Amino acid sequence: MRIILDGMGGDNAPAAVVEGAVLASKETNHEIHIIGQQEQIEEELKKYKYDADKISVIDAREVITNDEAPVRAVRSKKDSSIVRGLNMVRSGEGDVFVSAGSTGALLAGGLFILGRIQGIDRPALACIYPIVGGIPSLLVDAGANSECKPNNLLEFGIMGNIYMEKVLNRPEPKVGLVNIGAEAAKGSTLTKAAYDLLEHSDMNFIGNVEARDVPMGVCDVIVTDGFTGNVVLKLTEGLAWNILQNIKKKFTDGAKAKLGAALLLDKMNELKKEFDYSEYGGAPILGVKGPVVKMHGSSNANAVKNTILKAIPYASENVVGIIQNSVLEIEEITLSEY
Amino acid sequence: MRIILDGMGGDNAPAAVVEGAVLASKETNHEIHIIGQQEQIEEELKKYKYDADKISVIDAREVITNDEAPVRAVRSKKDSSIVRGLNMVRSGEGDVFVSAGSTGALLAGGLFILGRIQGIDRPALACIYPIVGGIPSLLVDAGANSECKPNNLLEFGIMGNIYMEKVLNRPEPKVGLVNIGAEAAKGSTLTKAAYDLLEHSDMNFIGNVEARDVPMGVCDVIVTDGFTGNVVLKLTEGLAWNILQNIKKKFTDGAKAKLGAALLLDKMNELKKEFDYSEYGGAPILGVKGPVVKMHGSSNANAVKNTILKAIPYASENVVGIIQNSVLEIEEITLSEY
Repeated sequence: MRIILDGMGGDNAPAAVVEGAVLASKETNHEIHIIGQQEQIEEELKKYKYDADKISVIDAREVITNDEAPVRAVRSKKDSSIVRGLNMVRSGEGDVFVSAGSTGALLAGGLFILGRIQGIDRPALACIYPIVGGIPSLLVDAGANSECKPNNLLEFGIMGNIYMEKVLNRPEPKVGLVNIGAEAAKGSTLTKAAYDLLEHSDMNFIGNVEARDVPMGVCDVIVTDGFTGNVVLKLTEGLAWNILQNIKKKFTDGAKAKLGAALLLDKMNELKKEFDYSEYGGAPILGVKGPVVKMHGSSNANAVKNTILKAIPYASENVVGIIQNSVLEIEEITLSEY
Repeated sequence: MRIILDGMGGDNAPAAVVEGAVLASKETNHEIHIIGQQEQIEEELKKYKYDADKISVIDAREVITNDEAPVRAVRSKKDSSIVRGLNMVRSGEGDVFVSAGSTGALLAGGLFILGRIQGIDRPALACIYPIVGGIPSLLVDAGANSECKPNNLLEFGIMGNIYMEKVLNRPEPKVGLVNIGAEAAKGSTLTKAAYDLLEHSDMNFIGNVEARDVPMGVCDVIVTDGFTGNVVLKLTEGLAWNILQNIKKKFTDGAKAKLGAALLLDKMNELKKEFDYSEYGGAPILGVKGPVVKMHGSSNANAVKNTILKAIPYASENVVGIIQNSVLEIEEITLSEY
C-alpha cells in the first residue's frame, strides 16, 4: 500500500509530519510517500535513521494555507501538496491521503478531485469525540455541512457506522442522534425526519441522545448536522480546557493546595491524557471516492504516526467500497417499495 | 409587589418551594403568594416561623406534571397552579409568576394566557450559563424554539440584552452569536442573516462566538437558536458532571491520591460551586406579556429563594415594557427605511 502524506499541512509542518512518518515506518511495512517541497522535507528526513525503501519524497511546489478560500485554492494551486496528493489517490498511485492541512481545501479537493460516492448526497467530516473515563465516540458530521436534510443524517450514520466497525474495530456500534429530548417526537423537523430514517435502517440505532449524555459515551457513533456537530466538538474542547486551567490555578493557590496537587500529579496527567485523542487517528472525510484523512492542525509526531497507522485499515478494509454498497442497497430497497 | 409562587412545581415541591419562600421573605418586604394544594402547602409552612403578612397560600387543586403534553394540559387544567398563577399575572392580581414546573406548560401557558409582546415573534427561554472562573453569561434561547428565523435571533439578543442590564445589573452587555467560525461570512444561512441584523442593532454586538470560547465567558449574552442553545446548555452540564465525577474517582484511588484530595477538598468544593448557578435566579421566559420565571426542576430552597429575589427587579424594572418599546422602535426604524 502507498500512503500519501501531506508534508506541508499543519502548524508543525514539515518537522512533525516527517518525524511522524519515520515513527510510523517502524510499525508498518507499507510505503509512505511524503509530498511537498522536497528540499524542506529532505532536510527534516536527514535528522533520522529510516528505511529508504519505506519512505520517499515527492516534490510539489505549492502550499495551500488555512487562510485561503478553499475552492479557489484547490482550483488554482494545481502543484500543491493537497491537490497533487488527492490526484494520486484518484489515479491509483496512492491508496490513501493523510493531511494536517486546511479542512476546507481537503473537503473541496475531495469533492472536485475524487468526487462523491454514488448515493452519498453530502460527504462529512467524522471526528473522534473523547470520553473521559471511557472509549471515544465518533462524531459525524463535525462541521462539513452546516445545513442538512434528513437523508444526509442517515448517510452520516451509515458512514460512521462502517468506519467504526472496520477501522476502529467496534462491532455493531451504537448509533445515536443528537436531539433536544429523548422521545422520537421531540426536536426539530430535521431530527424528527432523520429519526424515522435511522430507525428504519438496519444499524444498531439507539434513538435520540441528549447533549447531556454525549460526554458519557452513551453511543459510539454520534449523528448530527455539521453546525451542531461543530458546536459539540468545540464546546467540549473549550469547556474541558477551561475546567482544567481553573483546576490548575486553584491547585497552585497556597502551600496546602500545592502539596495536595503534588500528590495528585499523576492522576491529573491521566485526566489530561483522556482528552488527548491523538492516539485514535485523524478525522476521515467520509463520502468521497477515496480514503482521505484530516489530522488536527496542531498534530505532533505521535498524532501523525497514529493517523498514518489508522489510515491503513481505512484503505485496506475498503471502507469506501462498503459505504457505496450499503448506500446502493438502501436505494434499491427504497425504490422497490414504490 | 405580589409574587406568585407555584407551590406544586419541581421535584422537591412543595417542601423546597415553601422553604425557599420563607427564606426569601426574610430578605424582602414584597408579598409572596404560594399557589397550589392548600393543605399540603400549609403543612410545610407549619415547619417554619414566618411573617404571615408576607406569605399567604392560594388554593388551586390541579397539578400539571412534566409528562403531560403541555398545550393540552394548559387548556384542560384550568385550576392548576400554573394556569391560575399566570391568570393572576394577566389580571394584575400578581406581578410575577415563579415556577419550577413543566417548561413546556409555562411556555404554552405564557403564550395562551399572557400573549406575546407586540413585535416579538417568538418568546424564548433565557438561562444562566455558568462560567468557571468568571461571572455567568445568559443563554437565549435555551430551548423554546428548535427552529428559528433570523429576526427571532435578533429578538433573543434584544431581550437578553435588556434582562442582563436591568435584572443582572451588567451595563452594556457584550452580545455574541454562536457560530461555527469567527468571520461574518461563516456559518449557516440563519446565522449569516442573523449576524447582519445584530450588527445593525444598537447593542454591543461583538460578532460571532465559536462554541470553544463560550465557556470562557467571552460574551454576556449568548444568542442562538433553541436547538443549539439546548445542546450547549446540556452538553455543558453533562461534560462538567462527567469530568468532576472522574476527578473524584481518580482522587480516591490509592492512599497517596486520597491524601492529596484531602488537602484539596476546599478547592474542589469551590470548583463545584462555580457550576452551581442557583445563586443567579431562574430562567425568565422572555417575550410574553408579563414576567414569568422558570426554575430548574431540581431547585432546592436556596435556588427558590434566589429566584424569588431576582424576580423582583424583573417585575419592578418593567423589563416587559422596555422590551416592547425597544422592539417597536426597531420596527419604526425599519419601516421608515422603506
